[in-house]
Amino acid sequence: MTAPKSLQDTLFDTAVIAGVGLIGGSLALGLRQRGLARKIIGYDASFDALQEAEALGVVHEIKTKPGEWLRDADLVVLAVPVRVLIPLARELAPFLNPSALVTDVGSVKSSIASEMEGLGVRNFVAGHPMAGSERGGVSHARAALLENAVWVLAPTDQTPLTALSRVRTLVEELGAAPVVMPPDAHDSLVATVSHLPYLASLALTHMVARDERLSLLAAGGFRDLTRVASGDPRMSRDMVVENKAALRDALSRFRRQLERLEADLDDPEELLAAAQEGKRTRDSLPVVKRSLLPQKHDLVVAMPDQPNQIGLVTQALGAQHVNIKDIEVLAIREDGGALRLGLESEEAVTQAADILTREGFEVRSRR
Amino acid sequence: MTAPKSLQDTLFDTAVIAGVGLIGGSLALGLRQRGLARKIIGYDASFDALQEAEALGVVHEIKTKPGEWLRDADLVVLAVPVRVLIPLARELAPFLNPSALVTDVGSVKSSIASEMEGLGVRNFVAGHPMAGSERGGVSHARAALLENAVWVLAPTDQTPLTALSRVRTLVEELGAAPVVMPPDAHDSLVATVSHLPYLASLALTHMVARDERLSLLAAGGFRDLTRVASGDPRMSRDMVVENKAALRDALSRFRRQLERLEADLDDPEELLAAAQEGKRTRDSLPVVKRSLLPQKHDLVVAMPDQPNQIGLVTQALGAQHVNIKDIEVLAIREDGGALRLGLESEEAVTQAADILTREGFEVRSRR
Repeated sequence: MTAPKSLQDTLFDTAVIAGVGLIGGSLALGLRQRGLARKIIGYDASFDALQEAEALGVVHEIKTKPGEWLRDADLVVLAVPVRVLIPLARELAPFLNPSALVTDVGSVKSSIASEMEGLGVRNFVAGHPMAGSERGGVSHARAALLENAVWVLAPTDQTPLTALSRVRTLVEELGAAPVVMPPDAHDSLVATVSHLPYLASLALTHMVARDERLSLLAAGGFRDLTRVASGDPRMSRDMVVENKAALRDALSRFRRQLERLEADLDDPEELLAAAQEGKRTRDSLPVVKRSLLPQKHDLVVAMPDQPNQIGLVTQALGAQHVNIKDIEVLAIREDGGALRLGLESEEAVTQAADILTREGFEVRSRR
Repeated sequence: MTAPKSLQDTLFDTAVIAGVGLIGGSLALGLRQRGLARKIIGYDASFDALQEAEALGVVHEIKTKPGEWLRDADLVVLAVPVRVLIPLARELAPFLNPSALVTDVGSVKSSIASEMEGLGVRNFVAGHPMAGSERGGVSHARAALLENAVWVLAPTDQTPLTALSRVRTLVEELGAAPVVMPPDAHDSLVATVSHLPYLASLALTHMVARDERLSLLAAGGFRDLTRVASGDPRMSRDMVVENKAALRDALSRFRRQLERLEADLDDPEELLAAAQEGKRTRDSLPVVKRSLLPQKHDLVVAMPDQPNQIGLVTQALGAQHVNIKDIEVLAIREDGGALRLGLESEEAVTQAADILTREGFEVRSRR
């Protein structure tokens, strides 16, 4: 961890991170490592978490109760699970300096945005860094978690433009990519791309729960569709419950799409058009893994049906020090037996393509 | 390709493969390589396909028109796409020897089973080898395609037990795993695990087609859920249209599950129970890739957040000649940053675990 380069470099004098878990901790580390705040105070309901954060050097000071000390903060970030976000906002609001910039990192935005307006917190900009990790808690926090993440900022009509501009600068300084949209647009989008898929996956999973034969026949496609049902049940539940209004709307749009497709079962030409359009859309989705920014440095290698092809590919690249960041066996039809490699840069893609071509492999960049 | 070991080894004297595509060709190769038929005749509407099959040594003889020559066949396999299966059955039925064993490989079973009864083809057993490949056509046919595949046999009340027994033996001799169930049970199962997931995936895909911002936010989970929408549109369409009765039933059960989950949005405790039950079910699904039999030789390696971990793992195994058959970066929560390796045998899993543990990796067998 490097110290702030100089006081002039800091965006903020005193930053308060309320909730020192994975995201709050990562944000604190980002602020420290990039010299964006002179002092970072951790606030948490859990004294253990606070002590761990202090011991790990994530925060400079810790506080267990809200109070007058909050008046000194010029940046306050609410970084608690979405279920306890509003109670936290109510607890802190009376002590906030009216000029302090306030933001949050919850996965649902309309409710907190209107709550903050009700509480009279003027310089609030709702935020949602779309990053996460399989392992929670401050001990897994790292500044890199937020780098390259899409970070939605959700101002309302009331949000001062100066506040929006300052949060946007902060997000950029943290190495993330700000995307601005109204709170209800955000909630509707995440309902569609995240919360609805979770419910659909859960519904499909429940359909096979009562018949052993189903799981015998459940092919790769079914596993793909139900993978998200394998996530943490409590976190998933809290997310969808908090966003239930937008989710109900997404559910009715989903039902209408299903009904149209069901009707098309009697109109095979129309169904073919729908299948073709679906394939076009799916094939144009950006490939994303850890962050939500398109990952463009992909190379696809055709895999002959012979033993140890994966080993030959990775060894040829390893011998030339090409770092494989991601790897996936593509089983989708038009890719044939193929391996997708996620590499660090376009140069690495070119280098890997040369190496593998010399080894006799057929390669192409991802469409 | 090895010749039949001896005439005594053959199950059949003259086998007719009607439709020499990927599955028909693979079946013909399996019959030849394992010495299960003395003579194999290819029949197809496409003369080009027939010539290719003959040139590749997949069949001994080719026929372009049904006729009296069919009377000699003691095994007839209908191996055409589901859309043209019934027309083919009608075309061949008048020429079939009443004692010939007849089966098919279509993905929907009730319609062909009742059609064959109507046509008076007594020794018919509907079949569905659950195997396929990204590349169609006889040039990609190989006997191994059907090995270890789950092969559903779907007898009706009218099917002679001797016919069922002979087809079951044939399937076992081809190296596949017969699973017997009534035609409507089969159709309902594939509707649930394959055709419904396809429609749901298509519906989700269509929801993002009209909004560019959605694809920016579409995370890994969304990609997983829409992967099957990327398959061949015409084949997918034909499959779901042919099975529309069972699919409509699966759709209503899916809607009921979704409605229950939607109602549970107002009952968070109940929704948590549903989420936990879903996770249990999903986590107990067998891991399957190419074939539909559980693939048991998996090893999961925890991946520290450091460069070139994939390369280190594959190189360590390659150096000791451990053949990696499949590889997947697991992004699901409870697996952490982890790599799943599909290996050839339990011995290979033990060997790989030893090698990687010595290299400092944390490994475990797949739950």
